[in-house]
Amino acid sequence: MPKISQRAQHMPPSPVRKLVPYAIEAKKKGIKVYHLNIGQPDIKTPETALKAVRENDLSVYEYALSEGNLEYRKSLESYYHSLGFTDLTPDNFIVTNGGSEALNFALATLCDEGDEVIIPEPYYANYNGFTSTFNVKVVAIPSTIDTGFALPDMADFEKKITDRTRAILLCNPGNPTGYLYTREELEKLAQIALKHDIAIISDEVYREYVYDGLSAVSVLEFDSLKEHAIVIDSESKRYSMCGARIGTLVTRSKKIRDAAMLFAQARLSPVLLGQIAATAAHKNDAQYILDVRKEYTERRDLLVELLNSIPGVVCPKPKGAFYCVAELPVQDTEDFAQWLLESYSNDSETVMVAPAGGFYSDPALGRKQVRIAYVLNTTDLRRSVEILRDALEHYPGTIR
Amino acid sequence: MPKISQRAQHMPPSPVRKLVPYAIEAKKKGIKVYHLNIGQPDIKTPETALKAVRENDLSVYEYALSEGNLEYRKSLESYYHSLGFTDLTPDNFIVTNGGSEALNFALATLCDEGDEVIIPEPYYANYNGFTSTFNVKVVAIPSTIDTGFALPDMADFEKKITDRTRAILLCNPGNPTGYLYTREELEKLAQIALKHDIAIISDEVYREYVYDGLSAVSVLEFDSLKEHAIVIDSESKRYSMCGARIGTLVTRSKKIRDAAMLFAQARLSPVLLGQIAATAAHKNDAQYILDVRKEYTERRDLLVELLNSIPGVVCPKPKGAFYCVAELPVQDTEDFAQWLLESYSNDSETVMVAPAGGFYSDPALGRKQVRIAYVLNTTDLRRSVEILRDALEHYPGTIR
Repeated sequence: MPKISQRAQHMPPSPVRKLVPYAIEAKKKGIKVYHLNIGQPDIKTPETALKAVRENDLSVYEYALSEGNLEYRKSLESYYHSLGFTDLTPDNFIVTNGGSEALNFALATLCDEGDEVIIPEPYYANYNGFTSTFNVKVVAIPSTIDTGFALPDMADFEKKITDRTRAILLCNPGNPTGYLYTREELEKLAQIALKHDIAIISDEVYREYVYDGLSAVSVLEFDSLKEHAIVIDSESKRYSMCGARIGTLVTRSKKIRDAAMLFAQARLSPVLLGQIAATAAHKNDAQYILDVRKEYTERRDLLVELLNSIPGVVCPKPKGAFYCVAELPVQDTEDFAQWLLESYSNDSETVMVAPAGGFYSDPALGRKQVRIAYVLNTTDLRRSVEILRDALEHYPGTIR
Repeated sequence: MPKISQRAQHMPPSPVRKLVPYAIEAKKKGIKVYHLNIGQPDIKTPETALKAVRENDLSVYEYALSEGNLEYRKSLESYYHSLGFTDLTPDNFIVTNGGSEALNFALATLCDEGDEVIIPEPYYANYNGFTSTFNVKVVAIPSTIDTGFALPDMADFEKKITDRTRAILLCNPGNPTGYLYTREELEKLAQIALKHDIAIISDEVYREYVYDGLSAVSVLEFDSLKEHAIVIDSESKRYSMCGARIGTLVTRSKKIRDAAMLFAQARLSPVLLGQIAATAAHKNDAQYILDVRKEYTERRDLLVELLNSIPGVVCPKPKGAFYCVAELPVQDTEDFAQWLLESYSNDSETVMVAPAGGFYSDPALGRKQVRIAYVLNTTDLRRSVEILRDALEHYPGTIR
């Protein structure tokens, strides 16, 4: 048999991969599974987007331009102007197959094999997949649940910088913690990036979904980072169109843009139909965003309150995105998550959660934690936490 | 400024990249440019596909499964059964963002940095982009225009195999030459692959478009290659839906499939809407394929005859795909292609061709050649060759 690459052998599986067969078995037994483990919202895609696709009059689905069609990049330009970045033009955007491809392009553009990227942990598990694809090493900076996942002292970042460090990668607001970076934290990170002449890659795909009257600070706000900032953006979460596969790499750096374009040209074209959907969605979307933000706020408030009311559960209140990380009174959430699917049900229902180990460079750090996505409606969320409470009363491994 | 990776610095630009600004300038001057340089057909996408997208009743564009949704993989199963591969099931397919991503997955699965892939040249220029992304070395096996780009002696292949060789990569029928591999050639390649235990990656995205009553032989026909064959497939050319970004990696090898799935999971999901379009297109497509094949046959016959009637032009008749490589009576087709756009016009019209240097590992080998895509209708093709003939009469560098 042909050899499989080292690259593939080092690719991490999805954090819930091991659980999927148990979920399938549970469903076969007639058990309803509430999915708290995934980032697929139940929110409707904007009607304007659905309509634009239904009413398209194309007779040939042609290649889009490698950098994305001009009409869509103009709608990105308007959107970024509305955020205050009025210097951006269509040339600052490269349209990608989801935020995933934008991050792949950023890593490929900056990193060679053995180079390092610093990432505060816990972090989005797929970052391990993207870095492994290019044999790039993740250097994690730990943040902990006791401080609500606040960034550690900036000195900790500087200690980790080596001559192989090529970038600091942030997710703001964060998946999986919902943490929102403060302006001060970002200012300090900007100083470090400039001092060491490394890039900041900021994954801002959840920027609309920030609560309590707060707003997300983009790395684009720092003029000093003109040559150093790369923003990963996506329409997937903003407009609940994850399957449209439309993301964007945003940068003011011509050098980075020109290099990233080589990878965009190699794969020819981003998706045409998704650009049509997203262009339409960007028109008059203010009410949509407000409505969805209100919905997520209600879900978050309910979820976090109910979770913290369970004995032994600790869940910092996230300020953005639609995830939270909760610590459970168990020794190993991988075992607990499997038990939920394999051995437990409550009135023929159970829940699936994502063990948080996969969100840490050292899975042991997340062994007592789970990530919960509040992508279900409040009725289902309420029921899910009720199940979780009952399950923790019956799970043999619960620490009392 | 942050460093750009070596990987990015070694990425080859598109073969026509340098020409694009001249084409834009020509158009600004009011000159009509016939594009013989690109693989974007003017053929209509099947009406069934357009209709399925227009009539979709989705309210949320959800993530598709990482391996592609079951309904679409079942339509791939039926299609491959119709080709005679009745053992294939939906598990043999991983749906990708175009054939490009399928090839990326194949290379990532098989190759580490410094590994080698053997490719007969001239070859599809983007293969250089994909291999450069992973720092994989292309080892070219030359084929020449005098033999109509037939494969060289198999001994030439074996001489190139080293302990870093991981795969032989074919495009059949071929871009840019339109060459169709014979069963004997493929049998010999299969023997070599098995003897040295390396994979064969066969890019078969043009398999429907083969002429003169011939048909393409798939590497899937060789049972002996069960663990060694990877087919790159795509709906882009089959159904003229390049912008839908739907491709597929096909393999019987569970080991390769499982490894490739890790890369598919990292990027979460292929495109949802494209799968809807392609699923519909596969239904009752026999007449569509016949009609399009007839159209390409007419174009090929006309183009090749007219090209060969120009003094000094040599163009082997391609047996498949919709490209041909022609040798022109000039020293340097890069210069000629630029001159066509910059300094020449005939009745305010000119043509854009792809200099063939970019399709060779050593551009010097293709210096006198161009790739011409017959993606224009016969009227435009006829006029394009008329312009080419006149241009060669006026170009200062024409060898007489």
